[in-house]
Amino acid sequence: MGVVIPLEDNKNKQASVKPLVDLTASDMERVNQLILSKAGSDVQMIPEVANHLISSGGKRLRPMLTLAAASMFGHEGDAHVKLATSVEFMHTATLLHDDVVDESDLRRGKSTARTIWGNQASVLVGDFLLGQAFRMMVDVGSLDALDVLSTAASVIAEGEVLQLSVAKNMETTEDDYLQVIRAKTAALFAAAAEVGPIVASASRADRNALKSYGMNLGLAFQLVDDVLDYGGSSSDLGKNIGDDFREGKITLPVILSYRRGTPEDRAFWREAIEGGASDAANLDKALGLIRRYGGLADTIARAQHYGTIARDALAPLPSSSWKSALIEVIDFCIDRVS
Amino acid sequence: MGVVIPLEDNKNKQASVKPLVDLTASDMERVNQLILSKAGSDVQMIPEVANHLISSGGKRLRPMLTLAAASMFGHEGDAHVKLATSVEFMHTATLLHDDVVDESDLRRGKSTARTIWGNQASVLVGDFLLGQAFRMMVDVGSLDALDVLSTAASVIAEGEVLQLSVAKNMETTEDDYLQVIRAKTAALFAAAAEVGPIVASASRADRNALKSYGMNLGLAFQLVDDVLDYGGSSSDLGKNIGDDFREGKITLPVILSYRRGTPEDRAFWREAIEGGASDAANLDKALGLIRRYGGLADTIARAQHYGTIARDALAPLPSSSWKSALIEVIDFCIDRVS
Repeated sequence: MGVVIPLEDNKNKQASVKPLVDLTASDMERVNQLILSKAGSDVQMIPEVANHLISSGGKRLRPMLTLAAASMFGHEGDAHVKLATSVEFMHTATLLHDDVVDESDLRRGKSTARTIWGNQASVLVGDFLLGQAFRMMVDVGSLDALDVLSTAASVIAEGEVLQLSVAKNMETTEDDYLQVIRAKTAALFAAAAEVGPIVASASRADRNALKSYGMNLGLAFQLVDDVLDYGGSSSDLGKNIGDDFREGKITLPVILSYRRGTPEDRAFWREAIEGGASDAANLDKALGLIRRYGGLADTIARAQHYGTIARDALAPLPSSSWKSALIEVIDFCIDRVS
Repeated sequence: MGVVIPLEDNKNKQASVKPLVDLTASDMERVNQLILSKAGSDVQMIPEVANHLISSGGKRLRPMLTLAAASMFGHEGDAHVKLATSVEFMHTATLLHDDVVDESDLRRGKSTARTIWGNQASVLVGDFLLGQAFRMMVDVGSLDALDVLSTAASVIAEGEVLQLSVAKNMETTEDDYLQVIRAKTAALFAAAAEVGPIVASASRADRNALKSYGMNLGLAFQLVDDVLDYGGSSSDLGKNIGDDFREGKITLPVILSYRRGTPEDRAFWREAIEGGASDAANLDKALGLIRRYGGLADTIARAQHYGTIARDALAPLPSSSWKSALIEVIDFCIDRVS
């Protein structure tokens, strides 16, 4: 006789970010206060632009990582709150600059700051937030944390420039692409997680564990984002399917489908991505090719690979609600596409 | 009987930056090496863009200030070299972003990076240099120096946003304008000078003296730049006369001429600056109005006022070749227009 599993139960088994959200709720309240206060300025346009993006409904996963990674090693006080806010500001500054670089009009379903206030304000308010991020780090006073986060700032920018260089070049390999997302996305996840044990005065092994967790979570997160761009629905994601395609961005689903395709398929990709032939009919064709060559499924498989590494990075740590919550976040990130 | 003063002698009395250049020459050699090394990256576009600007013949006044302000208090070692390089990178990052914000095509007589590599690379390489600047500061390990320079980074960006807000608004007052240039230009001069005594472990009074010197030198420097834009020659300055006018930038010569003019004059300025009527005929008319109302002479008088404050800031310090060189730089900056 079979066991009847009610649908609700099944749904509850879906990995969730909720344990992490609950555990960090009171500290995130302090982060949110600090965000508002440090994005403030007598120059009215600064809080306007900053709050537009800050209040636009991002999950604030990165600052939650910092808070959890400090608290799990017994940190109390407010250093982790300041560093978490710094991390979120670094992320926000990157988004402001990215929208200018990508000439994007929509982010998370809202008009980008650059379409409302112009490229100028987006560049400069990004610079301001980066400056404020560094001031908060300096205020915390940990040279180790400053080292980790300032290195991340350089690496992120380097990754973005590298992305420009590989842009619209269909010969980009999976390795090239990994180098880009390791720098532009995963480095900040890694830094966000590593500064937790640093301010908690945890061991070097603990620092390395959290850094590896963050790095691999970041890779999984970005790969899933790439899949969503070819598979999510516009209302879920706040952006349209095919944004990456229309911008000529090369992501792993495209790389896999290009390399696995026939010479005719490859000619199509070059015309679409390098030549800018990215109308709706060509997007349909691209989606068909990506499906035919398993581009989405295999990108998800890669994400799972990095997710497993992230999980193993935390394996030696003692069991705790913090550890469980961080591990569940790995599955949550990957489950967004399943 | 009169004394005949040969023309050459007279010319030699002209204040010069040479004493400062000579005193800092060997340290500047180390700064230049560090600039090349820290602007390096495996991502080829980064050193290309960075070196385009770095090698474009700026005077490197700011890093020389840092070196002199450290050496005059007996600092030895390499902390001042790293901080001087950080200061130059912060400045270069600002220029890269400024050219994007102002949509400038020429800087110091050369095409701007954005016209060669695009706005994207200019934004991102600027971000990279800022990240590298912070890494070098962290490497020095002085939280006081980090505090001064990270605060300057925020203030500079805030000043640039403020400049956007007052842009093309003819009701901008001299006070509004001073607030802009204090933030966008003078704050970095002040920070460059203040970190010298910090790494030399000099007294709080010495820090304040150098900070005040830098701040007021920066104000004088910017005011003279504003005058040069309406009075220098294109070949001297690497930019054309009237660039500020064509971009609708409001500077002190314009503010003075507007406020002192007749209602008809003011209508002209509004049309030219706010309305964008900035063709060659209108530039000629603007130059005539600025001359008629003493806009250049009185802006130079303001620069001399701040120059005097800068000089008095250093007055309590013991005589030394460093002190003389720094004082001569004040006159050198102002003499550029006389």
